[in-house]
Amino acid sequence: MIAITLPDGSVKQFESGVTPMDVAKSISEGLARNVISASFNNTTVEASTPLTEDGSLVLYTWNNPEGKTAFWHSSAHILAQALEELYPGVKLTIGPAIDTGFYYDVDFGDRTFAEKDLADVEKKMLEIARGKHEFSMRSMSKNEALEYYKKQNNEYKVELIENLEDGTITFCDHDTFTDLCRGGHIPNTGIVKAVKLMSIAGAYWRGDEKNKQLTRIYGVSFPKQKELTEYLALLEEAKKRDHRKLGKELELFTFSQKVGQGLPLWLPKGAALRERLENFLKKAQKKAGYEMVVSPHIGSKELYVTSGHFAKYGEDSFQVIKTPNEGEEFMLKPMNCPHHCEIYNNKPFSYKDLPKRFAEFGTVYRYEQSGELHGLTRVRGFTQDDAHIFCTPDQLDAEFKNVIDLVLYVFGSLGFENFTTQVSVRDLTKPEKYIGDVATWEKAEAAILSAVKDKGLDYVVETGEAAFYGPKLDFMVKDALGRSWQLGTIQVDYNLPERFDLTYKGSDNELHRPVMIHRAPFGSMERFIAILLEHTGGNFPLWLMPEQVTILSLSEKYEKYAEKVLNLLENHEIRALVDNRNETIGKKIREAEMNKLPYMLIVGEQEEKDGTISVRKHSEGDMGTMSVDDFGKMISEEVKKEIKEFKV
Amino acid sequence: MIAITLPDGSVKQFESGVTPMDVAKSISEGLARNVISASFNNTTVEASTPLTEDGSLVLYTWNNPEGKTAFWHSSAHILAQALEELYPGVKLTIGPAIDTGFYYDVDFGDRTFAEKDLADVEKKMLEIARGKHEFSMRSMSKNEALEYYKKQNNEYKVELIENLEDGTITFCDHDTFTDLCRGGHIPNTGIVKAVKLMSIAGAYWRGDEKNKQLTRIYGVSFPKQKELTEYLALLEEAKKRDHRKLGKELELFTFSQKVGQGLPLWLPKGAALRERLENFLKKAQKKAGYEMVVSPHIGSKELYVTSGHFAKYGEDSFQVIKTPNEGEEFMLKPMNCPHHCEIYNNKPFSYKDLPKRFAEFGTVYRYEQSGELHGLTRVRGFTQDDAHIFCTPDQLDAEFKNVIDLVLYVFGSLGFENFTTQVSVRDLTKPEKYIGDVATWEKAEAAILSAVKDKGLDYVVETGEAAFYGPKLDFMVKDALGRSWQLGTIQVDYNLPERFDLTYKGSDNELHRPVMIHRAPFGSMERFIAILLEHTGGNFPLWLMPEQVTILSLSEKYEKYAEKVLNLLENHEIRALVDNRNETIGKKIREAEMNKLPYMLIVGEQEEKDGTISVRKHSEGDMGTMSVDDFGKMISEEVKKEIKEFKV
Repeated sequence: MIAITLPDGSVKQFESGVTPMDVAKSISEGLARNVISASFNNTTVEASTPLTEDGSLVLYTWNNPEGKTAFWHSSAHILAQALEELYPGVKLTIGPAIDTGFYYDVDFGDRTFAEKDLADVEKKMLEIARGKHEFSMRSMSKNEALEYYKKQNNEYKVELIENLEDGTITFCDHDTFTDLCRGGHIPNTGIVKAVKLMSIAGAYWRGDEKNKQLTRIYGVSFPKQKELTEYLALLEEAKKRDHRKLGKELELFTFSQKVGQGLPLWLPKGAALRERLENFLKKAQKKAGYEMVVSPHIGSKELYVTSGHFAKYGEDSFQVIKTPNEGEEFMLKPMNCPHHCEIYNNKPFSYKDLPKRFAEFGTVYRYEQSGELHGLTRVRGFTQDDAHIFCTPDQLDAEFKNVIDLVLYVFGSLGFENFTTQVSVRDLTKPEKYIGDVATWEKAEAAILSAVKDKGLDYVVETGEAAFYGPKLDFMVKDALGRSWQLGTIQVDYNLPERFDLTYKGSDNELHRPVMIHRAPFGSMERFIAILLEHTGGNFPLWLMPEQVTILSLSEKYEKYAEKVLNLLENHEIRALVDNRNETIGKKIREAEMNKLPYMLIVGEQEEKDGTISVRKHSEGDMGTMSVDDFGKMISEEVKKEIKEFKV
Repeated sequence: MIAITLPDGSVKQFESGVTPMDVAKSISEGLARNVISASFNNTTVEASTPLTEDGSLVLYTWNNPEGKTAFWHSSAHILAQALEELYPGVKLTIGPAIDTGFYYDVDFGDRTFAEKDLADVEKKMLEIARGKHEFSMRSMSKNEALEYYKKQNNEYKVELIENLEDGTITFCDHDTFTDLCRGGHIPNTGIVKAVKLMSIAGAYWRGDEKNKQLTRIYGVSFPKQKELTEYLALLEEAKKRDHRKLGKELELFTFSQKVGQGLPLWLPKGAALRERLENFLKKAQKKAGYEMVVSPHIGSKELYVTSGHFAKYGEDSFQVIKTPNEGEEFMLKPMNCPHHCEIYNNKPFSYKDLPKRFAEFGTVYRYEQSGELHGLTRVRGFTQDDAHIFCTPDQLDAEFKNVIDLVLYVFGSLGFENFTTQVSVRDLTKPEKYIGDVATWEKAEAAILSAVKDKGLDYVVETGEAAFYGPKLDFMVKDALGRSWQLGTIQVDYNLPERFDLTYKGSDNELHRPVMIHRAPFGSMERFIAILLEHTGGNFPLWLMPEQVTILSLSEKYEKYAEKVLNLLENHEIRALVDNRNETIGKKIREAEMNKLPYMLIVGEQEEKDGTISVRKHSEGDMGTMSVDDFGKMISEEVKKEIKEFKV
């Protein structure tokens, strides 16, 4: 008998040789139907692997990342079999699962293989899948394994095996197909119900451009046809909503090779959008008692030595900036906190002055390798909607709740309704990893947990994920496509107050250390706008649109009336523009739709005579004729619904 | 006979040996009374120097900087004579005129000399001055000169003479005193009517700390007692208005050694002041058709190679920022224009799209030696209220006028009523110094001159002062103490459009080069706020004050009513704070006066009962009792008078 420990901590006795699938069945038939992979004592095993010792077992379904990995890894085997059957003599090399499916790199020899051939391979794969062939692992000696592939003239597999140690080499069989493989499969091919081969690409053997170029075939597979259909629709939509594409189309931002990679240039419409977001947050922050400060974008190296950033990131950062003489050394600021600590240190505070809340839209610069850069989500310079709250330990609880309120207000006003949170706390078994005394940590963690409960947030607690300087709370939003993004963050910090020797005079007339909270509801303006673009597809909430209304004159004759309407709208604080070009109204409407303009006001003879406008709403169409005044009121109402006053 | 050319171009014949004073007399007795110095063929001469060849003569009075230099240089001689008479055996070293008077470095040997001794020296100087002793120059051979000072045991003068060439050595005599001297004196000591020795300081011989420390005596002198009195009053007032002192007192900004020298940290009140100024300009700029953009604070080295800044300033700037690998090189941006050129280059423009006006409050970084740094007027990082206008050559005239209107609007709204302008144009004799074709330059210079005339500006034309890339117009404002400051600038640029290959499609369907205008009405936020502080002494216009009103409760009993008044004021968009401290009303008023708070509202029993407030105005006192509503209206009226809408 062996003892199997399950994730809930329960221990069950089984006969030696029991398989994960047997264990699943012993729990429930329903679970067994869904189990596709497992890990035993932290090692991936097959659902069919006999277990012969005591240990911890985790069962995976399609809904676990590990389950998907097994699913896609197995699908790569099916792809390889299909290729061998369709292209006898093709040389297989490696074929792993990746985050978005799987690929296989193959050498087609003299044969050509093109996108158009993918459909045949897909068909063959589904044929194989329907055979419900079981995957089964077996060991092979190094000699045997080398022999096997030498016979096939597959120099790639031979090279792979030569680098393996005898006694560790395993193969996987299913149906008529055999492949060198470490394991981790689904029970049988029949579980794969839908396959899509996405694309082909060239890939050098072992990633080295001195080697032969192979053909990489990318694919994805699902346990249900419906899931594949949904996935492809999502991909299509995501492509349309790619913020880099939309940013260009809507003329929000651009990049210039001459200015430098990863350094966005904000075009007029994008700069206006940013400013609107900044003003929105500023207004709420003012109500919440924040004070704006301004600090430079560089600081002496000494500043970052004090803060600890230099020791931690110095080598991987933009390097020091020297002066022509005097031997001074500066650095681009990677964070605003050291500067804000020095602002706090400008004058002595008493407990009556706290909390101090210093906010700044601070642009910071962090080096990223050029290959890592991606639109606005991975840049080298970005503006944090940063603030640092300096408070007494007793104020931490209330301050933390206030920040949560602000973050929720921001998300709500921007149409992010689905979000989850993660509370990152200490690993109690490794006290040496953290600075600050235990009582203070306990208080802070309790404060965060009580805050998230109080606010009714959907949260998970991640043990050991706290920073060395304090616990934190992160906000993950789901966008319109169901994708998760990390946005706002609230972090408690005991470290910088120590390092910068920050103090306040307590009611006991003694000096004490304040606690520091770092927080950024947006995270960064760049990243937030990127996510907002992909979330809304460029159809921002009305209050945020760079241009809310376009006035389309039916012909040049109504130019003057169009300008008059424009002036009236400005009185209503509506951002409008006039399209007086000598184009057909149809073309003007199409372009306005493409530019995501929320409202189109058409003015012609009748409208001028009646002093009215004909209103069209973006993607909804005709709303009839009304007075400019009524339209203005309608817009104000719409904006008011979107963005409420922040209440403290 | 010799021919003397005067500054107005007229040529007069005189007998050889005529002195500048004789020439002055030949023009008018009035002029002769005021002439105190002269230059002949661009060399400083005495008013009594005989002229023996043809040449150009300029006569200087006290009102010319050259006149002041001669005056103060001569005063240094009088100081030296006074010291020799009072402290026989004192060793004189050097004693030049400086911008604010003169000094003399002397070695008192074993004797001590302290501030308290200055009065005696002043007295002696005036005694000497009253003797109306004439200054007269004579040559001496090097040997004779060395002999003269060796006898006096003056090793300093000996060292000076040893470094001079024989035949070039001159001495100046007046009364009983003789000094080694290059010349440039007033006619006689009697012109010096008022003397003030300001301070003493230690100074190493020849500025080298390995040498002996001498005593430096600073002084200033005037042709009228009244001028000295005014000067001292001005100094006193300037000290009170020193923006570094006021910035600290009003908690506007601070510096931190750790962040770095010359890098201001804006405290909450200062940041709010800056933002108010920025919003004020943004609003006017929006009306004037500017579009805001945002660009990073660094750019690749390549960007500045293209713009020419690297070749021109690279070595004297903050050095390049290297990346950890990839060998990329970036620089802190010293100017926003290269970035804005790249923004212009983002998409093709036609002549119908122009002018494009890109504005940004862009923070730039320029290296200054630490000894050159001074408060906010000389910093290493500052924010320009920058904008670049890209227009067709035909639009230049109108655009230039528009910018002038904007600059005048800014100055007017901030209480700078006295200003002059300088038009800097080419030196026509040196065409090789300038880029861009002659016709374009002529057009641009004509455009600027027509604009300044049209706008009725007080201007001077400075030939040869244009930048190599285009002519410009600078604005100099006089502050409340009569001091002149250079603020706004408008520059035409033909260079960057070339270097960045900027184009637009003309009505002829061909590509053309736009002209670029650089402009900054404030100049920089830092410098402007410094000057505004010194101009207003911290009593900013009401619309700009970080806090406009303080509500002072007579005792804690009226705390609630004070808060109610605060809320009412917020409805009127008045920035107010409450002082509910348990202090006497007298102390609260004194502190509010010191903090330059424009209005104090006192609330007590009577006010609470009547629903009123008792109003005190800063430095003016009691204004009686009124309703909050009436007070709100009064403030709005005051602000409206200060800051009008910008009209385009």
